[in-house]
Amino acid sequence: MSLPNARVVLSSVQRLLRMGATANLVNLLAKQRPVDVANLLKRLPERQARAAFDSLLPGHPDLAIGALSELDAKAATAFLIGRAAEEVARLLARMAPDDSAGIVAELPTDLADQVVEALGQTGDVRRLLDYADRTAGRIMTPNVFALNEDVTAGEAIAQLQGLSRPEVVFYLYVVDDRHHLLGVISLRKLVLVRADTPLKQIMTTDVLFVREDADQEDVARQVATYNMLAVPVVDHEHRLVGVITVDDIIDVIRDETTKDIQKIGGLEALDEPYVQTPFWTLVQKRGRWLVVLFLGEMLTATAMAYFQNEIAKAVILALFVPLIISSGGNSGSQAASLMIRAMAVGEVALSDWWFILRREAHSGLALGVILGTVGFVRVTAWALLAHMYGPHWFLVATVVGVSLVGVVLWGTLAGAMLPFVMKRMGADPATSSAPFVATLVDVTGLVIYFSVAATLLRGTLL
Amino acid sequence: MSLPNARVVLSSVQRLLRMGATANLVNLLAKQRPVDVANLLKRLPERQARAAFDSLLPGHPDLAIGALSELDAKAATAFLIGRAAEEVARLLARMAPDDSAGIVAELPTDLADQVVEALGQTGDVRRLLDYADRTAGRIMTPNVFALNEDVTAGEAIAQLQGLSRPEVVFYLYVVDDRHHLLGVISLRKLVLVRADTPLKQIMTTDVLFVREDADQEDVARQVATYNMLAVPVVDHEHRLVGVITVDDIIDVIRDETTKDIQKIGGLEALDEPYVQTPFWTLVQKRGRWLVVLFLGEMLTATAMAYFQNEIAKAVILALFVPLIISSGGNSGSQAASLMIRAMAVGEVALSDWWFILRREAHSGLALGVILGTVGFVRVTAWALLAHMYGPHWFLVATVVGVSLVGVVLWGTLAGAMLPFVMKRMGADPATSSAPFVATLVDVTGLVIYFSVAATLLRGTLL
Repeated sequence: MSLPNARVVLSSVQRLLRMGATANLVNLLAKQRPVDVANLLKRLPERQARAAFDSLLPGHPDLAIGALSELDAKAATAFLIGRAAEEVARLLARMAPDDSAGIVAELPTDLADQVVEALGQTGDVRRLLDYADRTAGRIMTPNVFALNEDVTAGEAIAQLQGLSRPEVVFYLYVVDDRHHLLGVISLRKLVLVRADTPLKQIMTTDVLFVREDADQEDVARQVATYNMLAVPVVDHEHRLVGVITVDDIIDVIRDETTKDIQKIGGLEALDEPYVQTPFWTLVQKRGRWLVVLFLGEMLTATAMAYFQNEIAKAVILALFVPLIISSGGNSGSQAASLMIRAMAVGEVALSDWWFILRREAHSGLALGVILGTVGFVRVTAWALLAHMYGPHWFLVATVVGVSLVGVVLWGTLAGAMLPFVMKRMGADPATSSAPFVATLVDVTGLVIYFSVAATLLRGTLL
Repeated sequence: MSLPNARVVLSSVQRLLRMGATANLVNLLAKQRPVDVANLLKRLPERQARAAFDSLLPGHPDLAIGALSELDAKAATAFLIGRAAEEVARLLARMAPDDSAGIVAELPTDLADQVVEALGQTGDVRRLLDYADRTAGRIMTPNVFALNEDVTAGEAIAQLQGLSRPEVVFYLYVVDDRHHLLGVISLRKLVLVRADTPLKQIMTTDVLFVREDADQEDVARQVATYNMLAVPVVDHEHRLVGVITVDDIIDVIRDETTKDIQKIGGLEALDEPYVQTPFWTLVQKRGRWLVVLFLGEMLTATAMAYFQNEIAKAVILALFVPLIISSGGNSGSQAASLMIRAMAVGEVALSDWWFILRREAHSGLALGVILGTVGFVRVTAWALLAHMYGPHWFLVATVVGVSLVGVVLWGTLAGAMLPFVMKRMGADPATSSAPFVATLVDVTGLVIYFSVAATLLRGTLL
């Protein structure tokens, strides 16, 4: 089957919800996969989504719970709040422990405590919750199928066949008596050798692993770089405590990319999909940064006030202010985006800053000369063709051209270095958003422009 | 083994290269994994990288070729150019067909033709090259292990064991006599059933697949959404022609994300890693957009010239120009980033534009009122505390406050709608970069500001 037309299903669901045709609604939903139901729930307004979920749950608990696991943890809580802690625990117990731990972490504290209490018996969720958010420990599956090095291939296959609730197994991990990770065997290899071969003879001992407290973004980078299907997680004594599979890694990559792009756009990362984010949360996450940027940008009014006399004498100078400062902002935004991404994929490290500084100084100069030339030609052309900019047009053109070289060079350097400064300070390089760089560069751009003007125009226009 | 300290190895490699200690260099490289060698090659300057590769190739061809497959296709060509077509063909023949097809596509045309000629016998690469760039066909592995529905589980395992060059197999695909895709069986399931069970009894017939001409970004979205390890590729008659595995998908996701972030930053997507991109290519890819944006931004000078008399009469108006237009640009950048990402992950579709327009109109208004208030307070405070802005400060504060509401609202709407317009026109929504939106919004921001000023200040300052 190819992908269903999600939009058609969505509008049918909405129609059935409006008509109150619950039986038809459930029939339609029951034909979908869990991910598809999750995507429908994501795109419905909150009340409709809850109504759809509540109709589906009694008759098709597996599908409803499967859909819940596919949602972002925060979004999933919306379908649980308002239920008794015991019911929530019963639903979460049917999910993979990493999914339920993620959801519990997002529940209101008192409900979360009661749910953990009710889940008590297994202890898996409680253990996962001990790990910090966004670490390997929090996203791993804690029950890894692992066997002792002296077990034979035949015994291993028999044990695999006997698994009561077989998780998707890609690799067989080999451990010693104290559960220290020793090696790994692919399922394929296990099938291909003689049944009486002990695992220690066929295992690969060069196992890539991650520590339980590793940042999920680093884990994702490692899995992506080494084309792994799953990575074992070990504790500080190198004991195998869990495994993270590639599908969870893809979720991490998507999630981190979304946050990066939102930060680059100049707002706080949303924790939920855009459509699901409540209106006032959205305004708050955007407004906070807009106000910070506005406060920074207020310095431009101060800088402009400082050059007020120059502007009064030569109003013509004011005409090019937006052009000049936006060129600095644009070149800075380019440089910052290049660095943020190169850092995210591991092409550029903090220690490369000097190499980058030199390279970007050259790029900035080249780009500045290009824009400066275009700017000079623009003013000259308008002066000659439209008789604008008065008798001193040549000087004005020179001021614009020279300032552009300086502003673009400075914008490029500031944009390229800001992600390094952020990272050095322990912040996310992606915080060096285009608006942030532009704000930084605007004030200095004005100072460069008016200083060049003051120097070149003294005795003529000024 | 955990990740080696790449930086230490890199500086050792550079030192050995400078010393010309080839034997030591090869010994050091030979201890690395192919991916690690690829990452070293990526981070070395072009000549050093080529020297390192050339030293490694004779003694450790598998490692060298493995590293080559891990590089971006374009970056890989740098290590092949200058060799005879026969030698290039011999190297490429040892790679997976999708990797060698990607590299051939990036070679200079005449060399590519000779290489395809020399590779001739197998035909795989030639077939892959018939597919357009960035389609499922181009990135798939063309040799899928598939069996007839009447084969038994036991026979299937025997056949798997007999594979001369076993690719990593996750799923066993089941086909009919004419190679039409019928079903899929996980390797685990195959091992768990009785040996005489025919495949048709245990296969899942609800197979998710992609068409050979599907866009690689859509394929990636599907694999990510459905947590698949591999997706079968079929032709227009539903015959199985290949398979795409999740590690290739992660590469596609990384690659597309990098391009998106570069576009959002306001430059053309680079085809190679930043460090490997030649200086003048870098300047060209950035300069082209900077010039386009500059030409657009030149309209601000025209708009400012139009309001020249107002500025001459009330220089104070010029002081707030950068503040006002940057607020429009920032709010537009936020809205555009949100939409670009929501579209990329499939949360928002083209048909949602009306819903988004209404939602963003409300967001823009709320954000505009917040910034307008801050702006009003700022001017009032400076007027009362520092006695700036003259006797009509209250009117000036009102002009700033009211303009900000209009500019932020307009910036938000323009930023939110531009990705839809781009997509509608068949362009990449990510082209709606922060600088692009800012440029769009700057001119209209000026018009809004000066129009508000002209209305409110008539008879006093103007």
